[in-house]
Parts: sequence; C-alpha cells; structure tokens
Amino acid sequence: MPPLKGNVVVGQSGGPTVVINQSLVGIVEACLEADEIGEIYGAVRGVQGVLDEDFIDLKRQKKEDLEAVASTPCAALRSVRKKPTREDCERALAVFRAHDVRYFFYIGGNDTAETAMILNEVAVADGYELRLFHVPKTIDNDLCETDHCPGYGSAARFVAQALMGDNQDNKSLGGIKIDVIMGRHAGWLTAASVLGRQHANDGPQLVYLPEVDFEVESFVRDVQNAWAQHGRCVIAVSEGIHDADGRLIAESGESDVFGNVQLSGSGALGDKLAAIVRENVVPPKGVPLRVRADTFGYLQRSYFGVVSDQDAREAREVGRVAVRVATSGKVPHGSIVILREGNGASYAPRYDVAPLERVGGHTKHMPAELLAGTSDVAPAFLDYALPLVGPLPRPGRLEPLAVPKRL
Amino acid sequence: MPPLKGNVVVGQSGGPTVVINQSLVGIVEACLEADEIGEIYGAVRGVQGVLDEDFIDLKRQKKEDLEAVASTPCAALRSVRKKPTREDCERALAVFRAHDVRYFFYIGGNDTAETAMILNEVAVADGYELRLFHVPKTIDNDLCETDHCPGYGSAARFVAQALMGDNQDNKSLGGIKIDVIMGRHAGWLTAASVLGRQHANDGPQLVYLPEVDFEVESFVRDVQNAWAQHGRCVIAVSEGIHDADGRLIAESGESDVFGNVQLSGSGALGDKLAAIVRENVVPPKGVPLRVRADTFGYLQRSYFGVVSDQDAREAREVGRVAVRVATSGKVPHGSIVILREGNGASYAPRYDVAPLERVGGHTKHMPAELLAGTSDVAPAFLDYALPLVGPLPRPGRLEPLAVPKRL
Repeated sequence: MPPLKGNVVVGQSGGPTVVINQSLVGIVEACLEADEIGEIYGAVRGVQGVLDEDFIDLKRQKKEDLEAVASTPCAALRSVRKKPTREDCERALAVFRAHDVRYFFYIGGNDTAETAMILNEVAVADGYELRLFHVPKTIDNDLCETDHCPGYGSAARFVAQALMGDNQDNKSLGGIKIDVIMGRHAGWLTAASVLGRQHANDGPQLVYLPEVDFEVESFVRDVQNAWAQHGRCVIAVSEGIHDADGRLIAESGESDVFGNVQLSGSGALGDKLAAIVRENVVPPKGVPLRVRADTFGYLQRSYFGVVSDQDAREAREVGRVAVRVATSGKVPHGSIVILREGNGASYAPRYDVAPLERVGGHTKHMPAELLAGTSDVAPAFLDYALPLVGPLPRPGRLEPLAVPKRL
Repeated sequence: MPPLKGNVVVGQSGGPTVVINQSLVGIVEACLEADEIGEIYGAVRGVQGVLDEDFIDLKRQKKEDLEAVASTPCAALRSVRKKPTREDCERALAVFRAHDVRYFFYIGGNDTAETAMILNEVAVADGYELRLFHVPKTIDNDLCETDHCPGYGSAARFVAQALMGDNQDNKSLGGIKIDVIMGRHAGWLTAASVLGRQHANDGPQLVYLPEVDFEVESFVRDVQNAWAQHGRCVIAVSEGIHDADGRLIAESGESDVFGNVQLSGSGALGDKLAAIVRENVVPPKGVPLRVRADTFGYLQRSYFGVVSDQDAREAREVGRVAVRVATSGKVPHGSIVILREGNGASYAPRYDVAPLERVGGHTKHMPAELLAGTSDVAPAFLDYALPLVGPLPRPGRLEPLAVPKRL
C-alpha cells in the first residue's frame, strides 16, 4: 500500500492500568518520527471523545510532561466503557473525515478491540481509508493471540507483593485469611498470588480460579485440611469464581454495557466466603475461629508506585510498534500482540500484529497445564509470569533455635 | 541504680506493621553491645510465649538473617492479642526467674503497653527486679506521649500512594469512589489519604475521621456538592466513623479480648456507604450513577515493598534506645517515645522515655488544629505527616490543549 498521509487519533478505553500511559506516550513518540503523520490528537474518553469531537493536541505537549504522564497510573486521556452503535460509527467516521484522521489507535482490552472491530467494519463498508489498530492493555491478561498483556506484569507484581505481606501477617496472627482478586473471566491475576512463595509452608495455600468450577463442599474441606496442616491458611480467590452451572458465587446484579456484571468495588464475595468458613470449618483444638477477608479492588489496577519495569518497557513498545505497523502499510488494521522468545532468564518479547476479529470480544483463559488440581497453579506458571513481574523482594526469617524449657 | 546483669526477653504484640521487625533487630543489636546482658530470647507470640516458655535464641541468629528479617513485614516472632490475668503475670515472673530474665522489651501498641503495665505492677509488688520497656509500634499512630509511632509513616505512605492512584482511576472513569481506611479510634491513617494531592481538583475531595461525628444527611449533601463541583468524587473514610451517640456506622459484632470490635477484614462499611450514595445522591445530568467502594484492609499494615525510609530508621532506633535506657538504669520501666525537633524540611526525631501508665490503654486522637471542617484535614497536617512518609511519586498530566471542533 502507498504511504497514507493524515492525522492521528489515539484513545484509551476500559479499566485502567498503571502502564496504560506508557502505550499512549509510545504512540506519540513514534508518530512524531513518522513523515506520513500530521497532527496527533488524543480523544478524551476514548470513542466518546471521537463522537463529541473532544480532542486534545498531543503533538504540542512538552516532552517532560509526556514522560511524567507515562509513569502516572490510569488513563491520562480519561477512559470510557462504550460499545458504539452503527449510527455512532457513522458519526465517528464523519468526525475523522472532518479532521483528516487516517490513523486511529485504540488502547484497551477485549471490549475495546471489539469496538475497534465494529468501527473498522463500518469504515471498510463506507470505503473510508483508515488504519485502525488496537493496542493491548489489561490487568486481566485475558486477550487472545498475545502471549500476555501490557498492564498484567505490574498488576501481578502488586498482587504478588500483597500476598507476600499477607502471608507474613497470617503467620503473625494465625487464622484464615481470604483475599479476593480481580479477573472476572480468567484467573491470571489471581494466579500471581503464588509468585512470592519461598517456602513449602508459605501462603497462599489455596488458590481458586474461574477456570475451575467452585464447589462450596470442597472449599470447606480444603480449608479444614489446610488449617490442620499449616496451622493457618491464606486463600487467594478470583472475583469471578462460579459454580458448575456458571452462576457467580458473588453476584451484585449491576452490569455494564458489554453485559459484564460488576464484581469489584464490593466486599460481598469476601464476606460471603468468610461466613461459609465461620459456619462450616472447625478450627484445630484450642485455636480461635479467626477469619478475615480483604478485597483488593482498584488498588490492583491503579496503585501508584508498584510497577514492573519489564511491563512498563513493553507497554511503551506496543505503542511504538502500533505506529510502525500502521505506517508500514503492510496491514490496514489489527491488534498488536507480544510473542515470547524463551522462558525464565532467557525471556524476551517479540512484537507482531493479529487480526482484530481474533481479539475483539474473545477471552483467553488459563490453559490446563498452568493449573494444579482444583486449588493451586502449576510450577510452569512461575516460568510464564516471573519474567513479566520482575524480581520480588526477599523475605527473611529467624532460625528456629529453640531455647530449652526450665519449668 | 547499679548495673543489672541478666537475660533479655523481647516480644511482639498486636497488629503488625511493615517495620515492626526493625525494632526487634534494633533491640538485638543494642543488646549484643551491652555488657550487662547475657542471653537474648525472643518470646513466640508475645506474652503467650512467655507463659508457654516458648523462646527462640536471638543471640545466635546470623547477622544477614537479622538484616533480612528487619526489612520483612509483620512480626517475625509472631504476635498475639492477650491481656494477662494476675495469674498469668505470676506465671510470667516464674518463667523470668527460671531463665534469669531481667529485661523485657515488648513491641506493640496501646493494648501492648497496657499488658506491660499490668505485668510491671505484679513484678514491683513481688519485688522482682525487672527492667520492662514498651517499644511503640502501630499504623494507627494513636499512642499518647509520643509525637508519632513507628509503623505509621510506612502505612501512611501506602495509603497516600493508594489514593494518588485512585484519584487517577476516578479521573479516568468518573463517578463516586469510597475508600475505607484503618484506624478504629483515631483518624491519623485516613488523614494520610490527602498527602499526595497536587492540584485543587485532586481527590480525596471528602475525608471522614472518627474525631468528627458522622451524619448521614451531611454526608449525602457533601457527596452531592462534590459531584456537582468536580464531576466526580473520591471519599476517604475511617473504618471507625460513628454517629453522635458513638455508635459505629460499621458494626460487625465480633470483638477481641480488649473489647475492640472487629472492623477490618470486611467490606461492610464500604458497601453500606455505597448503598447510601446510590439511594440518596442524584448524579449531575446525563452522568450514570457509578459508585464503588474499596476497603484497603490488611494491605495497609503488611504490604511488602512500600516502606518509608524515615519510618524504618526510626523503628530501628526505638529498639536501640529501649536497650540503652534499660541498661542505663535511670528508669526501671517505661515506654519509648519519639519527640519532634522542627517540622517540614527541618524535621528531626529525638528519643525519650515516658511512664507506662500514660501510654497503656490510652488513645491519642487527632487534635482540632489538624482538622478542617467536618470533611477535610488542615494544611498543618501535611507539615506533620510528610516528613514521616518521605517523598511521594510525582504524577504527570497532559496540558489541556483543546483541538477546535470542525463539525
């Protein structure tokens, strides 16, 4: 395809991550270097900003402001959850025509990729030449085609460090601790709870993922056994756990425009599981029935100061790659993916592009080989996730040098 | 008083902090340098370990293990919540006699200081010569006599960074966000939610502390006004807010041996306040009624990797000071306190000792001069808290360079 001259619109959509602005700044940097590209506009609140013609000029931002934005969590252009209608798409194309926009980069998860796909279909049908690329981001790590998603490494790091601390807290005071972790359809983030385990006795001792049907009876049995074995128990559980009929164990009733039920921003699941434990589990002899639950909530996607360096680099790079692919003219639209070269210490990312329709609206679950039984993950998961998360802090412990009793 | 030769017992008690082991290691280091001191024993689970004669040898730990323990969150000796009876105290003294223990250092909050006081009274009555010192720690920052408590700076840092991220999250997606923060009797930790505010529009826009009676009607009015003014609203609320009659807004019914009701480890207060907002607040025109609540829970006292360097240094030093005071023989018992020399950039800590009975069982609330109205803190609080928390990350934002509309 011949070089396509025109202006750029970039938008951010869906739940934020702590590195989503790295991708935004990567796109701006690469656009500034591309001869084909004139103006660089940021759509405020994603596709809603396109419909409202609400753009801000990204070409005239100070370089130091862009760098500061890159390392600031959550969508600097603000975000939206909006599935455009056919009418919305016609309006978006009219706005693009009016501003000579020939490149649209949309940073987000699988709902965002679906929006990009819908808009792209209308552009193709209308014969409007548009290079349209989905730039991946999601803490859920549930996009198809890509090995992993920018945003996941940092959220996984947040969760790993949280469980490392919570394991120490549970060692200090004992009892049962339940931690509810984000990820409504896939267990990737909940699985990250195990990344800081150092010793055989370390929590979480039990991990429940949406990939495995949740049964209250086996949960009660698992907790009973773990308490007897370890004298305490830390439990990591996904907000999206469901029974064999697919009914969510937590169900708050509220849903968004994509049909996603609202699970976060509520302590209901944790309180429910704590109540199940209190009513059904018998503590070891002489031990009080101490049960606590925390729901990590939005801290996982927005906490300022816990970032995986590898994740930040990759998030920047997917933005740059999107612009390079778009201006190369080899493919007119697609979703940027990260492929993995090697595992563990030999891990390296490679970037490519996948068809939009293979990403939009699809969900990648954890494969069976990364699971272990019904309440843990396999060692292979550590090889997968640790390079994305980076080195974790090292806990210390006292040698158990018992002093002989005298009484 | 003449030098008192004998062995040492150190224990940790109450809810942990991320720097509580700094104090433990500070005590061990200073004991190793003191000629009067023979063995150094760690009581497993605080006073319970004394009663059980469950001690581990701290003198023969490797130096590198001690350093690793110092930077690991939560009680390395394990913790306990136990108020000893007169009988328990007699048993504890018998154990101390049997092991020639003449120094007892007890790291903890106001309940721990109360335990130390009770034990000390029995030792004095029995004529058993014992140097008994309470070493302060609590994320609640509610100990009397001391300017602030080791553990607070790091927990305040965790909360400040959480709110900085949550403010960005709320800017991205809008609506009302409620964050429930620890501190059942005093608002110090909830107040730390404001430390990262950079711009007039930054959240939290509303802050509710236990020092001010909570009224549902004014809460609803505050949220309504803030939403209209800012187009969004982040609310930081203490788990300990209560009505004018002292009834807790969150009440789960469970209480510990000191009569403290269990507030943490439950999403109930957040969900309750979210329901109040959903039922009573009318969003600005055209804006969806989006309300979310997170309860930060144990992350605030145990998160591995977010530490205030100043807090870590002071926590180490209070341990060392306790040993120096105890071996100096100037006072036989007391509670170590941190006094403040200067504010802001000229802040420096100074260490002293206060009588046990002025600390044990008492609570220090935030003084009126650090509050602003019924839903914010005063600028003087920043001068107080920022030196304890250390430099926070700097957020960036895009210049609002609007692109002229063409349609």
